[in-house]
Amino acid sequence: MSSQSHSVGIVQAKRVDFSEPLTLKNGTVLPSFHLMIETYGTLNANKSNAVLICHALSGHHHVAGRYQENDKYAGWWDNMVGPDKPIDTNKFFVVGVNNLGGCHGSTGPLSINPQTQKVYGADFPVVTIQDWVQSQARLADYLGIESWAAVIGGSMGGMQAMQWAMDFPDRIRHALVIASAPKLTAQNIAFNDVARQAILTDPDFHNGFYMEHQTAPKRGLRIARMMGHITYLAENGLSLKFGRELKEDAYRFDYGLDFEVESYLRYQGDKFSNTFDANTYLLMTKALDYFDPAADFNDRLDEALNSVKARFFIASFSSDWRFSPARSQEIVRALIRAQKDVSYVEIESTFGHDAFLMEDAAYMKAMRVYLSNIEV
Amino acid sequence: MSSQSHSVGIVQAKRVDFSEPLTLKNGTVLPSFHLMIETYGTLNANKSNAVLICHALSGHHHVAGRYQENDKYAGWWDNMVGPDKPIDTNKFFVVGVNNLGGCHGSTGPLSINPQTQKVYGADFPVVTIQDWVQSQARLADYLGIESWAAVIGGSMGGMQAMQWAMDFPDRIRHALVIASAPKLTAQNIAFNDVARQAILTDPDFHNGFYMEHQTAPKRGLRIARMMGHITYLAENGLSLKFGRELKEDAYRFDYGLDFEVESYLRYQGDKFSNTFDANTYLLMTKALDYFDPAADFNDRLDEALNSVKARFFIASFSSDWRFSPARSQEIVRALIRAQKDVSYVEIESTFGHDAFLMEDAAYMKAMRVYLSNIEV
Repeated sequence: MSSQSHSVGIVQAKRVDFSEPLTLKNGTVLPSFHLMIETYGTLNANKSNAVLICHALSGHHHVAGRYQENDKYAGWWDNMVGPDKPIDTNKFFVVGVNNLGGCHGSTGPLSINPQTQKVYGADFPVVTIQDWVQSQARLADYLGIESWAAVIGGSMGGMQAMQWAMDFPDRIRHALVIASAPKLTAQNIAFNDVARQAILTDPDFHNGFYMEHQTAPKRGLRIARMMGHITYLAENGLSLKFGRELKEDAYRFDYGLDFEVESYLRYQGDKFSNTFDANTYLLMTKALDYFDPAADFNDRLDEALNSVKARFFIASFSSDWRFSPARSQEIVRALIRAQKDVSYVEIESTFGHDAFLMEDAAYMKAMRVYLSNIEV
Repeated sequence: MSSQSHSVGIVQAKRVDFSEPLTLKNGTVLPSFHLMIETYGTLNANKSNAVLICHALSGHHHVAGRYQENDKYAGWWDNMVGPDKPIDTNKFFVVGVNNLGGCHGSTGPLSINPQTQKVYGADFPVVTIQDWVQSQARLADYLGIESWAAVIGGSMGGMQAMQWAMDFPDRIRHALVIASAPKLTAQNIAFNDVARQAILTDPDFHNGFYMEHQTAPKRGLRIARMMGHITYLAENGLSLKFGRELKEDAYRFDYGLDFEVESYLRYQGDKFSNTFDANTYLLMTKALDYFDPAADFNDRLDEALNSVKARFFIASFSSDWRFSPARSQEIVRALIRAQKDVSYVEIESTFGHDAFLMEDAAYMKAMRVYLSNIEV
């Protein structure tokens, strides 16, 4: 079979409007909002085969397939989602969604604030993982899905899967939490704050109302992304890929491009800063920082998880130092203490945190086996 | 004994002028230069008790003591250098020096370029570890020191100690290389490049001639330092010190100060960006990136070290992930392959890379014992 035949093919994004107000964790009420989604596969008659894919920091609703035949890139998890792929669209009805506050079409800082008729910009509220789950529950209602067969996500997406299990125990049967953590460490928060400071102190930030100044804090967002990118990759992975390879034969003795790794990082920073919204970056890093479900239970994660009914699949990657295997094991141990059903796999990888997006036989097989055992 | 009695007491910096031209690795000729130094203890009659302290990225010649009784801080290695301290000034004549290109008084980007009568700024050449060692050899000549009893340094300072042993095998009897590495990894270089990009893209950088514009790229330097600071600290050290401690009782839902770790990092960034020169930061990170003594020997570090005559003391710290114990062990193994005399100690610590500056009983004792065995 060609890889083409495993693709969901040509897909279309869809905007779903919600006219009921949504009260956020910080007290703000969004009078209305909309979410951009994509779906792949077919919802079965008893609506028991729906899977929600939650995205990470820079992700969105375009999970699989292409908008046009000649699109250079497919959706961000195209290796995982499609006919006969681990998240098999012959079996499952798969839903991708862009989070509230995102910059890919869902209501967010780039949207028009209905109360002012101006772009939200910095007036868009800081949303939380819980707020995202609430908005996704509205989406489930809209789609007629009473209970997800599974909610699946990597990194920040895994936090949403956990939150789903805690907030709607009767509406999720399986939570797949990949390369994630039960809360950020001081080091995680520190990196996020440096990223935010780079954006906030960019003279083009204009207190978050840069759209009104026909500009954007691209310098700051570029630095934020370059730094973030280092933390997504394993140290040994970077060494294997770039080592101390030079662009030219000799040192330049200036601040141009000496090393290949510099070229790679600057390219990543440039690309990201030209396509992503800085206010969205700010609020999504804050949602990460704020996620801490055990906080209301005297830091007892097992008690926070006491109400869940979903079965859990937890996966981590050996070289991930952003959310290391030890962080996934914290979730596993808490689930065991709470007497919940949990499967755990640690995948050997040199791709660091980014491994959750990569092709890897052992990882794909673990996902495939777990998902094939889900009854729909 | 009070700690006061272990201090070198009130010290004075001294400027030493060198009128002979110095040819740098990149081909530039400095027509003349000067170095700021401090000395503690007394040079003995046969001048055999001199120790050179080489500084790290943000260090300088003010190693120990105070300029005035009421100075808030002593020199940066005051816990290590003084009477009866591990680097014992009753025994040794200790020399601290600010590197060429520095911003604490030695010739550097803040100095007047004799050829233009204007501040060097970005016209100051990118210097290397080798250039520093050459300039320090001139200093040894000036002081009448034919051979150092020891050259000692942490991090970038350790690279200078190694370079001394390779470039002047007859002028150094002991090299103490602490929390260092034989060359930077791709990840090390990547962090340095993000730091440089933050500075280079700051609108106040003005191609490095910011002095002429009566400004400085403080935003960029602040971001560089905040990020750097995270890499100097251990993840578990940060968690032990700050965890997820909040400044106030509840989340702010804005981009002010939520977490203690944010407060700490921003303070460090602010302080540094108000006192350090951005051009110096750029060139010192480049000196780090370029250090690679094995490169001329087909990546055989043992062959690069073949000519050394000094005995080596190598120390690393368990939680240092910037220059991990594995990096120190590369040096140790190469020295053993080259049949050189080497002592190695790995210190348990939660202070990460910064541990080399910290008070630690096991570390102090290892230094004390090694140095007490040096014959002068």
